[in-house]
Amino acid sequence: MRIGLLTGGGDCPGLNAAIRAVVKQGMGEYGHTIIGFRNGWKGVVDGDIVPLGRQDIRNVLPVGGTLLGTARFHPHASDGGIDAVLATVEAERLDAMICIGGDGTLHAASKVADAGVNIVAIPKTIDNDVEGTDLSIGFHTAVNIATEAIDRVHTTAESHNRVMVVEVMGRHAGWIAVNAGIAGGAEVVLAPEDPFDMDAIEKFLRHRHRAHANFSIVVVAEGAVPREGSSMNFTQELGKYGEIIAGSIGERVSAEIAKRTGFDTRLTVLGHVQRGGEPTPTDRILGSRFGVAAVDAISRGESKVMTALRGESVVLVPLDEIAGKVKHVPAELLRVAHALS
Amino acid sequence: MRIGLLTGGGDCPGLNAAIRAVVKQGMGEYGHTIIGFRNGWKGVVDGDIVPLGRQDIRNVLPVGGTLLGTARFHPHASDGGIDAVLATVEAERLDAMICIGGDGTLHAASKVADAGVNIVAIPKTIDNDVEGTDLSIGFHTAVNIATEAIDRVHTTAESHNRVMVVEVMGRHAGWIAVNAGIAGGAEVVLAPEDPFDMDAIEKFLRHRHRAHANFSIVVVAEGAVPREGSSMNFTQELGKYGEIIAGSIGERVSAEIAKRTGFDTRLTVLGHVQRGGEPTPTDRILGSRFGVAAVDAISRGESKVMTALRGESVVLVPLDEIAGKVKHVPAELLRVAHALS
Amino acid sequence: MRIGLLTGGGDCPGLNAAIRAVVKQGMGEYGHTIIGFRNGWKGVVDGDIVPLGRQDIRNVLPVGGTLLGTARFHPHASDGGIDAVLATVEAERLDAMICIGGDGTLHAASKVADAGVNIVAIPKTIDNDVEGTDLSIGFHTAVNIATEAIDRVHTTAESHNRVMVVEVMGRHAGWIAVNAGIAGGAEVVLAPEDPFDMDAIEKFLRHRHRAHANFSIVVVAEGAVPREGSSMNFTQELGKYGEIIAGSIGERVSAEIAKRTGFDTRLTVLGHVQRGGEPTPTDRILGSRFGVAAVDAISRGESKVMTALRGESVVLVPLDEIAGKVKHVPAELLRVAHALS
Amino acid sequence: MRIGLLTGGGDCPGLNAAIRAVVKQGMGEYGHTIIGFRNGWKGVVDGDIVPLGRQDIRNVLPVGGTLLGTARFHPHASDGGIDAVLATVEAERLDAMICIGGDGTLHAASKVADAGVNIVAIPKTIDNDVEGTDLSIGFHTAVNIATEAIDRVHTTAESHNRVMVVEVMGRHAGWIAVNAGIAGGAEVVLAPEDPFDMDAIEKFLRHRHRAHANFSIVVVAEGAVPREGSSMNFTQELGKYGEIIAGSIGERVSAEIAKRTGFDTRLTVLGHVQRGGEPTPTDRILGSRFGVAAVDAISRGESKVMTALRGESVVLVPLDEIAGKVKHVPAELLRVAHALS
Repeated sequence: MRIGLLTGGGDCPGLNAAIRAVVKQGMGEYGHTIIGFRNGWKGVVDGDIVPLGRQDIRNVLPVGGTLLGTARFHPHASDGGIDAVLATVEAERLDAMICIGGDGTLHAASKVADAGVNIVAIPKTIDNDVEGTDLSIGFHTAVNIATEAIDRVHTTAESHNRVMVVEVMGRHAGWIAVNAGIAGGAEVVLAPEDPFDMDAIEKFLRHRHRAHANFSIVVVAEGAVPREGSSMNFTQELGKYGEIIAGSIGERVSAEIAKRTGFDTRLTVLGHVQRGGEPTPTDRILGSRFGVAAVDAISRGESKVMTALRGESVVLVPLDEIAGKVKHVPAELLRVAHALS
Repeated sequence: MRIGLLTGGGDCPGLNAAIRAVVKQGMGEYGHTIIGFRNGWKGVVDGDIVPLGRQDIRNVLPVGGTLLGTARFHPHASDGGIDAVLATVEAERLDAMICIGGDGTLHAASKVADAGVNIVAIPKTIDNDVEGTDLSIGFHTAVNIATEAIDRVHTTAESHNRVMVVEVMGRHAGWIAVNAGIAGGAEVVLAPEDPFDMDAIEKFLRHRHRAHANFSIVVVAEGAVPREGSSMNFTQELGKYGEIIAGSIGERVSAEIAKRTGFDTRLTVLGHVQRGGEPTPTDRILGSRFGVAAVDAISRGESKVMTALRGESVVLVPLDEIAGKVKHVPAELLRVAHALS
Repeated sequence: MRIGLLTGGGDCPGLNAAIRAVVKQGMGEYGHTIIGFRNGWKGVVDGDIVPLGRQDIRNVLPVGGTLLGTARFHPHASDGGIDAVLATVEAERLDAMICIGGDGTLHAASKVADAGVNIVAIPKTIDNDVEGTDLSIGFHTAVNIATEAIDRVHTTAESHNRVMVVEVMGRHAGWIAVNAGIAGGAEVVLAPEDPFDMDAIEKFLRHRHRAHANFSIVVVAEGAVPREGSSMNFTQELGKYGEIIAGSIGERVSAEIAKRTGFDTRLTVLGHVQRGGEPTPTDRILGSRFGVAAVDAISRGESKVMTALRGESVVLVPLDEIAGKVKHVPAELLRVAHALS
Repeated sequence: MRIGLLTGGGDCPGLNAAIRAVVKQGMGEYGHTIIGFRNGWKGVVDGDIVPLGRQDIRNVLPVGGTLLGTARFHPHASDGGIDAVLATVEAERLDAMICIGGDGTLHAASKVADAGVNIVAIPKTIDNDVEGTDLSIGFHTAVNIATEAIDRVHTTAESHNRVMVVEVMGRHAGWIAVNAGIAGGAEVVLAPEDPFDMDAIEKFLRHRHRAHANFSIVVVAEGAVPREGSSMNFTQELGKYGEIIAGSIGERVSAEIAKRTGFDTRLTVLGHVQRGGEPTPTDRILGSRFGVAAVDAISRGESKVMTALRGESVVLVPLDEIAGKVKHVPAELLRVAHALS
């Protein structure tokens, strides 16, 4: 078989592990030929090809990013995009495709599958909000980085009696905020799943600083919002691609806390460092397992499915089942974050 | 309620996160009093008590080991042990106990529960072979440390054209070996689940060094064994407590490879570093969730159950269901390890 | 002897190592009593005392921040400040003081010495711009953190063909920018020592992206400034304490590059994470050596001197020799940064 | 100019930074051609060449080991070795050579220089015992790894009331042991510079465990030896190349402590992990500076010199000045290790 491979959407650690696994399993176990496309769906549309052999994947396992490059480009959202994909599939005589990506890329995969191309998807998103899988590639590393940052500002908070506000990624779901908040021992965690009440936060912080310890860590997901009707109003302004502007909610929360409590309050916006660098072993293993599973599936003729982790097993989930859904942080985890504050 | 708390068996990272969560949730949510015992079941038998308040758990989240101390001591295996436990329970007017430990500690918990004490267990073992839970406390950090070690010897293997053999923990199951082997890109992974054939390994290494790359990484679980009837004989000699002697199988495998292939072959036995130091965010979160869940369960009157992770959920598992069982690495994961070698 | 001890100015990793060394060496070698002051000079003025014994310094070696707390407060800059210091010295019957701090704290030490108090200083500043010593406490950890951040954004820069701008600390000197820039393989490094020319940067980036690689890393010290008469004008607005406002120059440089080149350009402002968390071994060793040397010096009756690292030796430098001076990055190091871009 | 480049002796982190700097500075600043040799002096003797251009050094800065490969082979110690080197120098029309290595490689460089080849050396050794330079490439990373290991066993020592013995590298000098011992807060540090007295150690440990804390960390350099006439006899057996056999002294010290004190005592031999993996920023910067300085020197016609770090400066040191010398740990540093135990 000739199999096209791409990575789409924002880059993250663990993509190279998946690419490596697709190449090794595809060539080694089945004798397939793997054809890489540069910069996600854009490369498919443009016929921009990267040959992929054993030598191209040497030493990439611990390296972040994607050796194929990536772009936020969706063929179904551009005129003639799907037709251009089909033309490339034919020109390159592809029997199937494997695409690694988040929300947008999975949606594109669905559309391309509907147009008749056998396709298996591998989920990646540092936000971890893809439905149907316990973990997506990149999330675990992001939690590690965010936790390390919280550990770091913790010592400054304590030494200077400050409130340190840390804004992390998470537009629709607070997976990074809640996990890193628990791991870093944050006092307050604000997630999109649970709109916050600034009056309650003010009261909590005042009580804590008076009774227990004169410093606090507040972790804010970029998609966190105040409770409707609460005393703090905030409407996120979005960027030109509809993306959340880094720092917006963090700046507001930080300013509010400073104004209301008078505590010395400082903001750190983690930003891009959350999605870069060496993948954790967990992300390397996840990428490797997903890559092998995707090749196995495509070789059996499966299509329009996504590899997924469920407990200790890797399974396949129909793309239709997860379309348009956002996986939210479960109540138990939110509760742990609050219980340990 | 007055709740006794102990950590038993070998220490590992993440125990303090669980202790902290038991104290915070027990005191904060329910108003319980938490009484710690020093050095596991030994402290219960001796009535060796550590008071546990909010100030005792400050800043322990990122610290490995256990602030309570631990010991490999089983009350049911010593004369009058269970009676001494009951005497302490009465003397301290304990309503219930939470015990954090591996195999032996869980077994003791079962016996103590049978003697009439309400008890909830939290699983920890860097080997990850406790049945009924996806993860036990300490395993995730051990995989990270082992992967880092493999990454390190990788550069030396490549620079010197060597075979580097790395022996990791795992007496009955190869979880660390298989996970760190995949994450570190090892060429050969030897696990107890899959007895190895030295002839096949020799053939594989010779082919690889001739055709592909003149170096290799071999990861060996300390409980790995040669296939019966294979050309390499090896019977593990055990220490006085029945424990595996570190380095034994690693030394044999390393010597065999050197003798058969003539390749420059070096052994690294990771040993104690695998169980120490700062817990990963995953182990901190796991310990925190288990601690909260254990307090919730004991407060509801549950007994003779263990907290467990299943996919994204924390559940309770009857201790009877897991007694005497070893959780093995699933075939899919072993297959990925082999596929990517 | 009774010795007062304080940490002043911004917190940083390695302070606890120095505190621990002062206590251990002071008590163990000489039988001194060490009296800690909370929150820097403020605690001396207020007579806010922290007793320091062996048990207070257990396990603090790998912990960032300062167990004494710190504040940006200068006795000589506040009415009656020096008198209040002298009153506390008398009330506590102090024979001498050891103070750990940066610029401001060292200046205060000088003033207090002039008022008749025996005092030895230990330099700390993540900016590394204290004259007379190769290294100050905290700088080495900051370089590590900044390098790790550059490593992280590197993979995103490459995967997305972006220019990633990283703003690091360094108001008067570019030590962090230049060192982390070299270690992280940055293409452009902007430091206060070497005012930049935006036209040259534009030209360099255009050439590189056309001829070599379609991504770049630009590291900017917060005190970097455009060359006088150059095409980009920029005057740093300062905060109410005269401090540089984080992000200012980074935002300008990032916007200029985006506007001039049209390259997809993103900014990361590292901020507070640079000064927190676990100290590197180098900072722990430096703090330990300085602490021992300070106690030795004070016990010999030395005063108005600062411990300093010169090559492989720890020496003493008169405070008068370094007063008002800023240590700049040497030309050789700037040249390496440029040569390897 | 045509410049030959090799890395000799044991591999270590930071070598690739130096190779990268030689290539970038050589080609970029001077237009030289850089010819790499595979596997150290062996590659020169065999004429085994690796072409080195800009694309060969991409992304190698954070990668340990050496992309050129290395070997423990000395041309002056093998028949006709120097003549073979000269023949290759002529065949490849080399104007000069840059060689990166330790003791043996530097000695070979001296011999080759005496035979008429212009040669500049760059020192690397994780032992840090090369005379004339504050730091050699690889040492800083080794200290970090050893410190991390000590941090890890620390939590186990404390949780189990154990004596943990950690053997680190350092045959002739105890740089790693002393630095990692200070950074890790070890109670006892044994270095070749200061032969130890087992009676004193026993007494110290007994006192500490009784009076202060019931656990200890003992760091042993592989070249540590008992004081002559002391109660513990030990003569290091050497391997076939005269190398120290890993674990020998560690095992003896560990067994002696266990026998004399009865404390639960465990040994960890760090071994190969000390020389592998990602270089610290300090080693990347050191390699970069040495690489640039070596090219500058060779371009000016310098020969038979070594790049060296002295305080904040990179200087050149005649190879004759350092020949046959071992740089020992200074008394001040040994004293700090003892003072803080």
